[in-house]
Amino acid sequence: MRYLPSEAQQLPGNRASFSQHQPQHFLFAVDAGVATITLNRPERKNPLTFDSYAELRDLFRALAYADDVKAIVVTGAGENFCSGGDVHDIIGPLTKLDMPGLLAFTRMTGDLVKAMRACPQPIVAAIDGVCAGAGAILALSSDIRYGTARSKTAFLFTRVGLAGCDMGACALLPRVIGQGRAAELLYTGRSLGGEEAERWGFFNRLCAPESVLADAQTFAASLASGPTFAHGMTKKMLQQEWNMGVDEAIEAEAQAQAICMATNDFHRAYHAFVAKEKPQFEGN
Amino acid sequence: MRYLPSEAQQLPGNRASFSQHQPQHFLFAVDAGVATITLNRPERKNPLTFDSYAELRDLFRALAYADDVKAIVVTGAGENFCSGGDVHDIIGPLTKLDMPGLLAFTRMTGDLVKAMRACPQPIVAAIDGVCAGAGAILALSSDIRYGTARSKTAFLFTRVGLAGCDMGACALLPRVIGQGRAAELLYTGRSLGGEEAERWGFFNRLCAPESVLADAQTFAASLASGPTFAHGMTKKMLQQEWNMGVDEAIEAEAQAQAICMATNDFHRAYHAFVAKEKPQFEGN
Amino acid sequence: MRYLPSEAQQLPGNRASFSQHQPQHFLFAVDAGVATITLNRPERKNPLTFDSYAELRDLFRALAYADDVKAIVVTGAGENFCSGGDVHDIIGPLTKLDMPGLLAFTRMTGDLVKAMRACPQPIVAAIDGVCAGAGAILALSSDIRYGTARSKTAFLFTRVGLAGCDMGACALLPRVIGQGRAAELLYTGRSLGGEEAERWGFFNRLCAPESVLADAQTFAASLASGPTFAHGMTKKMLQQEWNMGVDEAIEAEAQAQAICMATNDFHRAYHAFVAKEKPQFEGN
Repeated sequence: MRYLPSEAQQLPGNRASFSQHQPQHFLFAVDAGVATITLNRPERKNPLTFDSYAELRDLFRALAYADDVKAIVVTGAGENFCSGGDVHDIIGPLTKLDMPGLLAFTRMTGDLVKAMRACPQPIVAAIDGVCAGAGAILALSSDIRYGTARSKTAFLFTRVGLAGCDMGACALLPRVIGQGRAAELLYTGRSLGGEEAERWGFFNRLCAPESVLADAQTFAASLASGPTFAHGMTKKMLQQEWNMGVDEAIEAEAQAQAICMATNDFHRAYHAFVAKEKPQFEGN
Repeated sequence: MRYLPSEAQQLPGNRASFSQHQPQHFLFAVDAGVATITLNRPERKNPLTFDSYAELRDLFRALAYADDVKAIVVTGAGENFCSGGDVHDIIGPLTKLDMPGLLAFTRMTGDLVKAMRACPQPIVAAIDGVCAGAGAILALSSDIRYGTARSKTAFLFTRVGLAGCDMGACALLPRVIGQGRAAELLYTGRSLGGEEAERWGFFNRLCAPESVLADAQTFAASLASGPTFAHGMTKKMLQQEWNMGVDEAIEAEAQAQAICMATNDFHRAYHAFVAKEKPQFEGN
Repeated sequence: MRYLPSEAQQLPGNRASFSQHQPQHFLFAVDAGVATITLNRPERKNPLTFDSYAELRDLFRALAYADDVKAIVVTGAGENFCSGGDVHDIIGPLTKLDMPGLLAFTRMTGDLVKAMRACPQPIVAAIDGVCAGAGAILALSSDIRYGTARSKTAFLFTRVGLAGCDMGACALLPRVIGQGRAAELLYTGRSLGGEEAERWGFFNRLCAPESVLADAQTFAASLASGPTFAHGMTKKMLQQEWNMGVDEAIEAEAQAQAICMATNDFHRAYHAFVAKEKPQFEGN
C-alpha cells in the first residue's frame, strides 16, 4: 500500500495557540504565524536578567509545541538589540554565589540556547545597535541574522574576566564565521561592525535601521508560509548532524527526507506544479 | 631495513581501464587520466532520473578501482549544469511510493554522494546556468567547483515541500560556506549567483561560460599529473577527519602521511629536487 | 558558603620563569608576559630541521606550565616566516627510513601541533614572505594570524609527492577557511597571497611588512594583560568542543564558565565596573 497522507490533526502534546500569550519580562506578539519577541528595557539597551533568561528559556521550550507559531523573530526595542547580562542584576549577584550556584546559572543560560536550537521554528534575529555578551549569543543562537551597518556585535565575556566559552559560543561561532575569526572575537571581545559581520557570514543581510525589524518579519513570514514541517526538519538535521561523520549524516538525511516525502505539503507541491499553480503549503 | 618502494603493480581488484566505458544515461570520456561526466539532456537542463542516479552511483563506485582515471570532471551539456530530480520522472512517482519505497529512493540518492566522497579521485564540477536541487548536491559533493557569474545554484528542496536535509546537504554545505549562510540557502531554496558563490567559498573560481569546462579539465589534468596516490589520501583524510577530535586527526594524519612517504612519488620528488628537475609523478 | 577566591599561589607543577630560557635552534625572548619565538636561519628562509621540530615541541609542552608567559608570538627572521621541512636536512633522510622510522617522524611533527593547541597561551603568528609546508602548519596551528600582503602561504606537501594530510591540516584548515577552499589549497599546494588570505579568514589582519611583528606583539601583549586564566579556558574549549554535539558543548561551557566565575579576575572586573575603573587582571 502506498503512503497516503491524511488531513492535518491536532499534534499530540501541542497547545492550541500562542496568539494571546503575554510574557512578563519582554514583549511577545504573533502575526500570521510569526512570533516576534522584543526585549524591552530600551533605556538600558535591553539587558537580560535572571527572570528574563528563565522566561525566554521557558517560552522557547513551550514554542516547540505551539500550533500557531511557524517562525520566530527576536529583536530589541529602541535601536539596540541586547546589552547582555545586566551588571547590577546579574554580574553582582554572581560574585556572591557558591560553585553549585554558579553552575546553576551557567546551565540555565545554556538551556536557553538549547531551547532555541531545539524548537522547530526558524529563528530570525533583527539586530540594530548594541548586540553584546549574552545578546550576541542570542543572535548567534538564531538561524538567520539580519543586521544594520551601525550595529556592534561583541562577545565581550573577556571584558568581565570570563572566558569566551559562554552558552556554546566556542562551538557555534567557529561554524558560522570560521575558526580564526571566531578565536579573535572570543579572545578580545572586540566589536564586530555590521559590514564586517555581513562579509564574514555572521549577518545574512544588511538592512536599514528603520526597516531591519520589518525585513526580518517579512522574511520570517515567507518561511511561515512555506512547508513548515519540512523547515523544522531542516533545523533539526542541521543540529543533529553537527558532529556526525559524512556517511552517517547522509543516512540520517535519507530517513529525515523520506519522512518529509510522506507529508501532504510534498504532494501539494507536486500537484501545484502539474497544474502550473503556486503551491499552498500547510505545514503538514 | 629501510623501506624500499618497488615498481608499480596492478592494484588488487582494479579494472584495467575505463577509457572505453560507455554509460547509458550520460556522456563519459577519458582524456589523459581525466574522466569527464556530462549530464546530457540539455533540452530539459539535464535533469536526473531514477536510471541516471543509479548509473552515476554505480560508476563512482566502480571508479574507486579504476587504473586509468586520476581525476574526474562533472558537467552538464548546453549551458546548464543540472536541474535536479525531474518532476515528471521522479517527483510524480515518489508521491505514489510507500515508506519503504521512499526510503529506498533517498538512500539511493545518498549512496551517490557517498560514492563521490569515497572514490579516490578529486572531483571538479564545471557549473554554468542552472544548478538546482540534486544538481546543487552534485556540485556540493565535488571537491572543487568552477562556476560562471551567470550560474544559479539553488538547494530548492523546500520549493517542493521538502526539507533542506537532502543527500547530506545539512552536513556538507555548512562546512563549505558557514552555518548561517547554509541555513539561509536550505530554508529558502533561493538562487546563489556566481559572484556570491565565489565570495562565499562555494566556487573555487569564476570562469567565462565558454571556458568553464576547459578550465575545469585543465585543472583536473594538473591534478592527474601529480602524485595521485597522495591526492587520494588527501581526499580520504578530509572525509575521515570530518568528526574526529583534533588530536585524533593529527594521529590519523601521522599514519596516512607515513604511508605516503613510502611511495615512489615521494622519492621521485626528492631526487628531482636534488637534480634540479621537475618531478614526474606516477601515482604510486 | 559562597565561593571565596583566595590570592594567587604557585600553581602545582609550574616552573617559576621562562624569562631566561635560551633554546638552541631558534630565538626566544619574553617581554611583559609575551614570549616571542623567532625561527632564525634567514639565509634559508627559516626551514625546520629534526632538531628544531623537537625543540619546538618540547618548548610548547613546557610552556603549558610557565608562570610568566601569558601569550606567544611565532615569527621568522629576515622577511620570511618559515620554508618548512628542509629538503636536505629532512626530506633526504626521510627517504632512507623504514616504516616505523617514518611514523616516528610524522608523529613527532604532529606532536608539535598537539603541543601548540594544548598550551593555554594564545599563539599569534606574525607572517611575512614565505610561509610554506610545515611553516604553513605552524601558522595554521596558531590561534591568530597577522600577515602581510606580500606573504605567500602554501601547503605544498603535494609538491614533494605527499598528501595534504600533514600535521592535522585536513582537520584544521577546513574549519578556518571552509572545506572547498581548503581542498583546493591541499590538493594543489598553490600559494595563497596575503589579501586573499585575509578575505578567506586565514589572516586576522593584514599589516605592513615592517610592522607585522610589532603589531602581533602588541596584540599578544593586550591578551597577556587580560584575564589570562580565562583566555586559557577559551583556548581549551575551542579545542575540546571541536567534535562535540551542540548540547554537549553547551554543558561543557556551563562547567568551564562556572570555573571562570570562581576566579579573582571576574571579581576584579565587577568591582572595577562598580568603581568606574579599568579592571587590572592578574590571570587568577
